[in-house]
Amino acid sequence: MTDDGSSATTRVACCQLAPVLGESAANRAATLAAIESAVEAGARIVMLPELPVSGYVFADPVEALALAEPVDGPTVTAWAEAAARHDIVVVGGLCEAAPDGTLRNSSVLLDRSGLRAVYRKAHLWDAEKLFFTPGDAAPPVVDTPHGRIGMMICYDLEFPEWVRKSALAGAELLCAPVNWPVEPVPEAERPAWGAHIRVQAGAMANRLPIAVADRAGRERGVDWIGGSVVVNADGWPLVMAEAGTDATQILIADIDLADSRDKQISERNDVHADRRPWLY
Amino acid sequence: MTDDGSSATTRVACCQLAPVLGESAANRAATLAAIESAVEAGARIVMLPELPVSGYVFADPVEALALAEPVDGPTVTAWAEAAARHDIVVVGGLCEAAPDGTLRNSSVLLDRSGLRAVYRKAHLWDAEKLFFTPGDAAPPVVDTPHGRIGMMICYDLEFPEWVRKSALAGAELLCAPVNWPVEPVPEAERPAWGAHIRVQAGAMANRLPIAVADRAGRERGVDWIGGSVVVNADGWPLVMAEAGTDATQILIADIDLADSRDKQISERNDVHADRRPWLY
Repeated sequence: MTDDGSSATTRVACCQLAPVLGESAANRAATLAAIESAVEAGARIVMLPELPVSGYVFADPVEALALAEPVDGPTVTAWAEAAARHDIVVVGGLCEAAPDGTLRNSSVLLDRSGLRAVYRKAHLWDAEKLFFTPGDAAPPVVDTPHGRIGMMICYDLEFPEWVRKSALAGAELLCAPVNWPVEPVPEAERPAWGAHIRVQAGAMANRLPIAVADRAGRERGVDWIGGSVVVNADGWPLVMAEAGTDATQILIADIDLADSRDKQISERNDVHADRRPWLY
Repeated sequence: MTDDGSSATTRVACCQLAPVLGESAANRAATLAAIESAVEAGARIVMLPELPVSGYVFADPVEALALAEPVDGPTVTAWAEAAARHDIVVVGGLCEAAPDGTLRNSSVLLDRSGLRAVYRKAHLWDAEKLFFTPGDAAPPVVDTPHGRIGMMICYDLEFPEWVRKSALAGAELLCAPVNWPVEPVPEAERPAWGAHIRVQAGAMANRLPIAVADRAGRERGVDWIGGSVVVNADGWPLVMAEAGTDATQILIADIDLADSRDKQISERNDVHADRRPWLY
């Protein structure tokens, strides 16, 4: 709510990109160009996919390590500069060479003051287990100039416990960089149906808006859904990508973040107060 | 799997009825007629809605109490007789006058040996809080001649922790009697979309099939979705009701219950083994 009591929305951009594995410089430039386009469109929170600079389908750990960067490397440094110059929040994935020598599937959050959080994916998908060490920390929830923002990565979203944890920590928006590979879905439904159902249910269970920046493109035999989506606190999609492996695009949605602080869904029901954690 | 290694399915029937509040004898007869029809259709597990004999929209606690029955009352006795005669499992809701003097929104499970479980709804919806005492026990998971069956009721499904608990206890099928009132959904989507998303996500997170018996009809100003649905272990609907307030019907689905014991979803992922409960 603004000072005069009217509702205020925050513009979120999900930049759906098609990185090319091994072309880090070009991929990085594409993320920066997307950030500029999102800012021109009025976005205050700009999201990038999981692993948008390194690519995803690594042949082996050696290749993954060669494409990794530390959080003070060129990618995060460039994103931080853009965040400071435009007074925006940037959330994006990073193939991280961590200080402890491990390789992490990470996501960083930057605002005008610089790097605010590094989250390391806690639930690893399939071959990621060959390359990455899973994170052992809770998903961060960060107070930024543009809202209180939670973050997790892709397969993390399939664990309702993890979404709940972010919501209970007070997130007003959950930002999830993903790389959703094409999965079989029943005929006559959109390719991202399964992925979207999980996102929508996570939002509904917590009255928590969720913004997902997916990737597009094709990489070493893997097709990506291109299923970026933003759902509101009730779980209804505000905008979703026209799914397709060639569909690079920037989705724009205006979200009332303050609305998500209200967890009431009926006269006598509140999605958090109704929990009975001593029974779980 | 059968002895010869082939896949075996179990036929489940969700009886979507339209009880009339205050007409308990007629409502009870309708449940018994539906059980007979389901048996004729080959069902081994027969589900009835939440509160199918009492109705739902009570004016006050006195009315609710007047429509309540103990678990040795006429409704459960008649269901037990049908379960024994046909060697089936019956799961159905009951406005229960509990032994401790409280009123409960319950669900019972019967097989050929009689009453196997009484579950008392742990998460109460809206005005239910004025009439019912919430249950304090975990959702039961019962080994029956027709599979290992979990049970919960309606709003319980909106708590992923509760579905998880049933799945971790080894349920092969989750049976959920519900009364889903009509809720607003975005245009161009089916009326039960929100409710189905929650069910589908719960199934996906656990590779747990879920069968939902909803009610139809209109009661004191409340329209019911008529959204009965059966989803498989991957969360995809096997069958769903043609939603509508007048749509009484019996949904039939064949489910491979043994399949749900396999929690693997990729070469290296298992929806339960991938959990990191010490972080939750």
